Amino acid sequence: MKKYAVIVAGGAGVRMGGVVPKQFLPLNGRPVLWYTLDAFLRAFPDLEIILVVPAAYLERARTLVLKFAEERRIQLVVGGDSRFHSVRNGLGLVVEDKDPAKESSTKEGSIIFVHDGVRCLVSGELIQRCYDQAVRLGSAIPVIGCRDSVRLVGEEGTSKTIDRDRIKLVQTPQTFRSDILLEAYKMDHREAFTDEATVVEIAGKDVHLIDGELTNIKITTQTDMILAGQLLGNR
Amino acid sequence: MKKYAVIVAGGAGVRMGGVVPKQFLPLNGRPVLWYTLDAFLRAFPDLEIILVVPAAYLERARTLVLKFAEERRIQLVVGGDSRFHSVRNGLGLVVEDKDPAKESSTKEGSIIFVHDGVRCLVSGELIQRCYDQAVRLGSAIPVIGCRDSVRLVGEEGTSKTIDRDRIKLVQTPQTFRSDILLEAYKMDHREAFTDEATVVEIAGKDVHLIDGELTNIKITTQTDMILAGQLLGNR
Repeated sequence: MKKYAVIVAGGAGVRMGGVVPKQFLPLNGRPVLWYTLDAFLRAFPDLEIILVVPAAYLERARTLVLKFAEERRIQLVVGGDSRFHSVRNGLGLVVEDKDPAKESSTKEGSIIFVHDGVRCLVSGELIQRCYDQAVRLGSAIPVIGCRDSVRLVGEEGTSKTIDRDRIKLVQTPQTFRSDILLEAYKMDHREAFTDEATVVEIAGKDVHLIDGELTNIKITTQTDMILAGQLLGNR
Repeated sequence: MKKYAVIVAGGAGVRMGGVVPKQFLPLNGRPVLWYTLDAFLRAFPDLEIILVVPAAYLERARTLVLKFAEERRIQLVVGGDSRFHSVRNGLGLVVEDKDPAKESSTKEGSIIFVHDGVRCLVSGELIQRCYDQAVRLGSAIPVIGCRDSVRLVGEEGTSKTIDRDRIKLVQTPQTFRSDILLEAYKMDHREAFTDEATVVEIAGKDVHLIDGELTNIKITTQTDMILAGQLLGNR
């Protein structure tokens, strides 16, 4: 099946306290985002990347893309006001097989990965597993268990313990069959859309979890940068 | 007030796949546990440490303790079958002020920290803040927010999104006024006792949360060792 990766590098990176969004910060000599793009380009030779970036960083992103021999497999699009709008902008570039000669039941459709640009340590193995499950079940949402005790905060600051085995931390690539994802993104934006899985669920479809990776961290702090640099160095 | 730190180094470290429990693994030339002990010794000059270790590692722990000039401030005790039993063994060495000349209302009691031996990056600042709040409110349970989307798994593998702002990941030192903690640990063990906060709550007392630290990680994997080594190197 055809494969698209919508890579969302839309965050302004305010948490890092710097001017440069974290996806463009250097890690062992290359921008964070370079590693992310490289991982998806390597995962499948026929995968196309749709890279969603803030308008102000379009030129910088273009320069980065040109560093890849396979730069033609990467399209750029400007992000929106929210995660939902950024992903929807990206999905606008997905080209479905519209050959009228094919019956609807035999149209293959695509598999679409939606991935955080700052999760630059994602492995090819995880991308492959997500693909396989999405082909089979329609979706693959990578999650990892929680290693700390967990408390659930309620009204007025009270909190209670919750069984940590019931808690799953969600990663990306959140992976879907294109019919499911494209249909869901026809909805108007809602506050409840915190990630792609919630959009699909609110559109009425179940999502299927899959084992993520401890090392597939989201770089949001300087501590994360240190860890990511080390993990990359150890490869 | 008098201060005790019950440091629990009772885990067998099976997750690391090695023979040596992770608290004894070297990190930048010193065992993980050395940094933990050092942090508490430095936090308050009048703090006493009760170090709970597996029976098989008593000698190794003793050798480690003797490396400190202030080794007299550290007592050793053997751990039990569960976290609860290990902490209870440690609490058995807490000496309360039993001077009969003092009125009950003027008895000061102590502040007791219960800390994971493998959280060797805890800062003196966090220890101080936990102390201050426990003096004021009776307890201080350090927690951090969750940076990933979170799903709650239910019956038969179904899962649903849960507002991540309501989820807090619990760290140590879990810190208590001694009257509260010692009373709670008179109970018999229950499966629901996942940490000290749950013991105190089941004993009928509220617990009070406090901001933890992103860097106060619990070393459970090789990735954690790499990060901890880097963070220590940067100090």
